[in-house]
Amino acid sequence: MTTHRIEGLADGIFAIAMTLLVLNLALPEMGKGLAEVHSLLFGQIDKFLNYALSFVLLAAFWIRHHQQFHFIKRTDGKHLWINIFFFMFVGLIPFSTTLAGHYSRDSLAEVFFASNILMLGMLLHWNWVYATNQHRLVDRSLDPQQIALGKKSGVVTILVAASAMGLAFADPRMSFFVYPLIPILQGVVKYRHRRMTGATA
Amino acid sequence: MTTHRIEGLADGIFAIAMTLLVLNLALPEMGKGLAEVHSLLFGQIDKFLNYALSFVLLAAFWIRHHQQFHFIKRTDGKHLWINIFFFMFVGLIPFSTTLAGHYSRDSLAEVFFASNILMLGMLLHWNWVYATNQHRLVDRSLDPQQIALGKKSGVVTILVAASAMGLAFADPRMSFFVYPLIPILQGVVKYRHRRMTGATA
Amino acid sequence: MTTHRIEGLADGIFAIAMTLLVLNLALPEMGKGLAEVHSLLFGQIDKFLNYALSFVLLAAFWIRHHQQFHFIKRTDGKHLWINIFFFMFVGLIPFSTTLAGHYSRDSLAEVFFASNILMLGMLLHWNWVYATNQHRLVDRSLDPQQIALGKKSGVVTILVAASAMGLAFADPRMSFFVYPLIPILQGVVKYRHRRMTGATA
Amino acid sequence: MTTHRIEGLADGIFAIAMTLLVLNLALPEMGKGLAEVHSLLFGQIDKFLNYALSFVLLAAFWIRHHQQFHFIKRTDGKHLWINIFFFMFVGLIPFSTTLAGHYSRDSLAEVFFASNILMLGMLLHWNWVYATNQHRLVDRSLDPQQIALGKKSGVVTILVAASAMGLAFADPRMSFFVYPLIPILQGVVKYRHRRMTGATA
Repeated sequence: MTTHRIEGLADGIFAIAMTLLVLNLALPEMGKGLAEVHSLLFGQIDKFLNYALSFVLLAAFWIRHHQQFHFIKRTDGKHLWINIFFFMFVGLIPFSTTLAGHYSRDSLAEVFFASNILMLGMLLHWNWVYATNQHRLVDRSLDPQQIALGKKSGVVTILVAASAMGLAFADPRMSFFVYPLIPILQGVVKYRHRRMTGATA
Repeated sequence: MTTHRIEGLADGIFAIAMTLLVLNLALPEMGKGLAEVHSLLFGQIDKFLNYALSFVLLAAFWIRHHQQFHFIKRTDGKHLWINIFFFMFVGLIPFSTTLAGHYSRDSLAEVFFASNILMLGMLLHWNWVYATNQHRLVDRSLDPQQIALGKKSGVVTILVAASAMGLAFADPRMSFFVYPLIPILQGVVKYRHRRMTGATA
Repeated sequence: MTTHRIEGLADGIFAIAMTLLVLNLALPEMGKGLAEVHSLLFGQIDKFLNYALSFVLLAAFWIRHHQQFHFIKRTDGKHLWINIFFFMFVGLIPFSTTLAGHYSRDSLAEVFFASNILMLGMLLHWNWVYATNQHRLVDRSLDPQQIALGKKSGVVTILVAASAMGLAFADPRMSFFVYPLIPILQGVVKYRHRRMTGATA
Repeated sequence: MTTHRIEGLADGIFAIAMTLLVLNLALPEMGKGLAEVHSLLFGQIDKFLNYALSFVLLAAFWIRHHQQFHFIKRTDGKHLWINIFFFMFVGLIPFSTTLAGHYSRDSLAEVFFASNILMLGMLLHWNWVYATNQHRLVDRSLDPQQIALGKKSGVVTILVAASAMGLAFADPRMSFFVYPLIPILQGVVKYRHRRMTGATA
């Protein structure tokens, strides 16, 4: 089992989960009149925003997953199953998104969505920590600073998801605005890494 | 993150979006009698045409996306996100198609579909302009005429989608007949390019 | 645009169409009692057979598509669009299957399914004829006997699908038993080819 | 037809089947009140467990399929069709999962699910036995102990699925707890193999 195959399955599952998100949007039913188009579109602006948010979050996790596998050269049984459980929560995102989009004022629904994101963040962090611990599945020559930065990026994602979960209890609608921090902060970490690499070169 | 991975995700998302289009078609319900087959098929000829149109349009965008990546050799953070937003609007096409197929006499529904196509055209154009600007993500040796032709093809797509949007306000049913210009004009641009390449060789 | 990309999209669309077939099967609804499992399973044996039939037919077309691309080395605009229209009818199979499975005693439904299979057969035949005509997209060294056998296999598929369409008018339920001839006869053609290749080697 | 193509289709079908599992989960309907979130989530804990179980089982079969193809270097007509029938039962898993999740106290539903798993186990075992018999589709140099271990792993899976089917008759809810033995015992077999390989090296 090469890492190449894991990446192939990852691409498939991410592509499907990202495309299934759109099933979240309510479709016209047979026999409904023309006057309904307006309400069909403007009445579910919440859901369009949720589609966009979940799509962007899945893309951010897809990017980080591939960034990790750029360095991960081998796999083993435990590492494989960490990835499979990661994929399981990727596949759950269309359900969580529909739930959170439909009940956007409900704490429980938003906490469920936040838990899903948190699980993704924790499993992806575990993937990196397990693979890089004593250079288990990466090249011996991999820069420790690179490993540290990957860990920092993982911790940032976990902290943001945990904050969103906390906010969901206080004000469910607020948590929505916290998630965009995940791709933004990942970008910041990546940018700092590139500057650092430039500095050491 | 190599461009190879972006193409893998692109193939997955395009394949799924193209296949989900068929969910647009109304299926028989349990318990309906045999007499209904006729109306089930001939009553939704509009939807069959919409399925074919959206399939062809998605295929045309898929072709141009791959033509661009034939020349794009690297990626960066901004370029990655241009592509992700492009994929987001690819994933929205099954929804837009169902909406436009169901309310084919409604301006708002047709404008929504046209906006979706327009967003695809603009993001794909941006993808090319960003990548080729000062040969940012392409080979230094890439022929400027090739770059110019890619831009011309992008502008043509945007103009057709904008025209369809304008027509949708005037007569929603007319806009349907404008979209086939997209693959046709792309073919013309490609044909002229091949003649040009032949001339310079 | 290399042929490699067409094969990637083909794999995606075939995989999705084959998996969506299962949506044809009626699922339990909320609140229905335990006594219904028996009727849910045995009441739709027709649909299970249709699932298996369409799956096998799609697999047979997938195999032939890849066998053709084993020899097809280049592509051009027209060839690309032949493939895209082929994919369009692949994507339509889940709809046709549900229709034919639900109205298995109705001529129109069975004729629709047969037309879908016939379109697949004709487009795949056209794909081969276009690519091999004057060795347009294949190696100059490709054995003419190989080309002739590919054509024979294509004609056989078209004849079987046309027969199924004719039978559907006479007795809709009979047409079901004709399709398995497609993979069987393809196997016969392939077997004869291997014997022939052995003879010329 | 290279084995590479079979693996591509396998990845696609597994990715889609694994992601479609989530459609098993009941989604909120339009117009339902906020008070329903609690019952929507906690009322279907059975289904969440079924989603996780089927995901893990599909992953285990995906892993073994790829492990087999690590050694299988060629294919032939019969081998291709063994794989296609294997894929057919992969595509049926989302249906079986929904059925078993909805009627978790019903013997027939659980027997149906167990039969699906059993078919997967038998076809995958047949895939290995057929390919390795007289080194038909594998390298001549492939260690007989490796072949024997692959067979042992296949027999273990078949025995577990058959036990689950037997238990489903006695107590449908019990069978659920038997399946996790499949990935666990596969891991044991793999671990013993790795120890053995280490010993012979």
